[in-house]
Amino acid sequence: MCDLIIWTYDWMPKGPRGFVRDLRLRWACEEAGLAYAVRTVPFDGRETNHLAHQPFGQVPFLSDGDVEIFESGAGLLHLARKSEKLMPRDPVGEAATVQWMIAALNSIEMVSVPWWFLEISGEKDNRLAGWMGNRLDQLENVLKERQWLAADRFTAADLLMADVLRVGKVRAYGNRPATERYVSRVTDRPSFKKAHADQLAHFAAADRS
Amino acid sequence: MCDLIIWTYDWMPKGPRGFVRDLRLRWACEEAGLAYAVRTVPFDGRETNHLAHQPFGQVPFLSDGDVEIFESGAGLLHLARKSEKLMPRDPVGEAATVQWMIAALNSIEMVSVPWWFLEISGEKDNRLAGWMGNRLDQLENVLKERQWLAADRFTAADLLMADVLRVGKVRAYGNRPATERYVSRVTDRPSFKKAHADQLAHFAAADRS
Repeated sequence: MCDLIIWTYDWMPKGPRGFVRDLRLRWACEEAGLAYAVRTVPFDGRETNHLAHQPFGQVPFLSDGDVEIFESGAGLLHLARKSEKLMPRDPVGEAATVQWMIAALNSIEMVSVPWWFLEISGEKDNRLAGWMGNRLDQLENVLKERQWLAADRFTAADLLMADVLRVGKVRAYGNRPATERYVSRVTDRPSFKKAHADQLAHFAAADRS
Repeated sequence: MCDLIIWTYDWMPKGPRGFVRDLRLRWACEEAGLAYAVRTVPFDGRETNHLAHQPFGQVPFLSDGDVEIFESGAGLLHLARKSEKLMPRDPVGEAATVQWMIAALNSIEMVSVPWWFLEISGEKDNRLAGWMGNRLDQLENVLKERQWLAADRFTAADLLMADVLRVGKVRAYGNRPATERYVSRVTDRPSFKKAHADQLAHFAAADRS
């Protein structure tokens, strides 16, 4: 029996596989040694069929007994509170972890996802390029000085930031060696590799069924 | 003596006054009845002079004894944990509040801020318009059904979502009456009005000095 259930789609096209955000929750559970099950909602009709669980029609959402949480960032905060492996228990370490989790979502991803959206829309002169480069430069300056974002150790902040950065075009955007080493360091962790392989296998199984 | 210190700029041009994100923290402290002081860092040279406190050169950051936190969303989570007035203490109510805070930052603001950036860049055919409209429609569907986002009462999620939405062009984008009523309902609160007036007065005082 698992109280923790990670909800994702039953199937996805090949393109986004390996990047669906249920990976963030799988990875966190693996790091923390938390037992979890994966259940599905239909990909077809996703924009209308599970709005009661996720008002933007997306995945993942997380259930934990009678608690249900959408937004991968919120699910990750919930898991981080369950395990010291994801977030230190002292107030200074906890605050540093939370601030870098929010920075991943609201200072980096707020620029990188729309930037990428314009890139794939065939925008010739991507007007978000300057902002994107600036944010990545500021992050590079931080990562030149340290191995991990918070508390001198791996935390959920690294998990989230590396997941934001590992998207192909973001990672490849400009020459930022400290950021490149950082993403490699975080995604070399066995828990990332297992979560990533499990997500790929989950969607591949649906192809065969 | 106040342990809580909200850090903002010493001065700002008139355009962004009333929208600087220290307002989120002032407003939360007012709602919760938490004593706080406001201190400043120089606006001039902001991109280099306080990177040790805020690696993206922005404000606000919050200090609380020996805890220091940048990212307004992270500061708001910190304050929400200090007061039941900002976030219910039961696990279901807390999860609902956190998920909607993250939704404000990562599902709405992740689209609205870049959309607005393209608008003010003079983009004729704003390629983020469809995505923006879709997210606001999904939120409108939620707000048609309820007065508050989480736990049937005002929480920090409403504070953050209303602050994201109240930016002029976002609020005016399309005809979404439930969203319009919601933003009015939340920003009619005395604590918002005080925080907003205090921010305007803070920067106006710097003009005269």
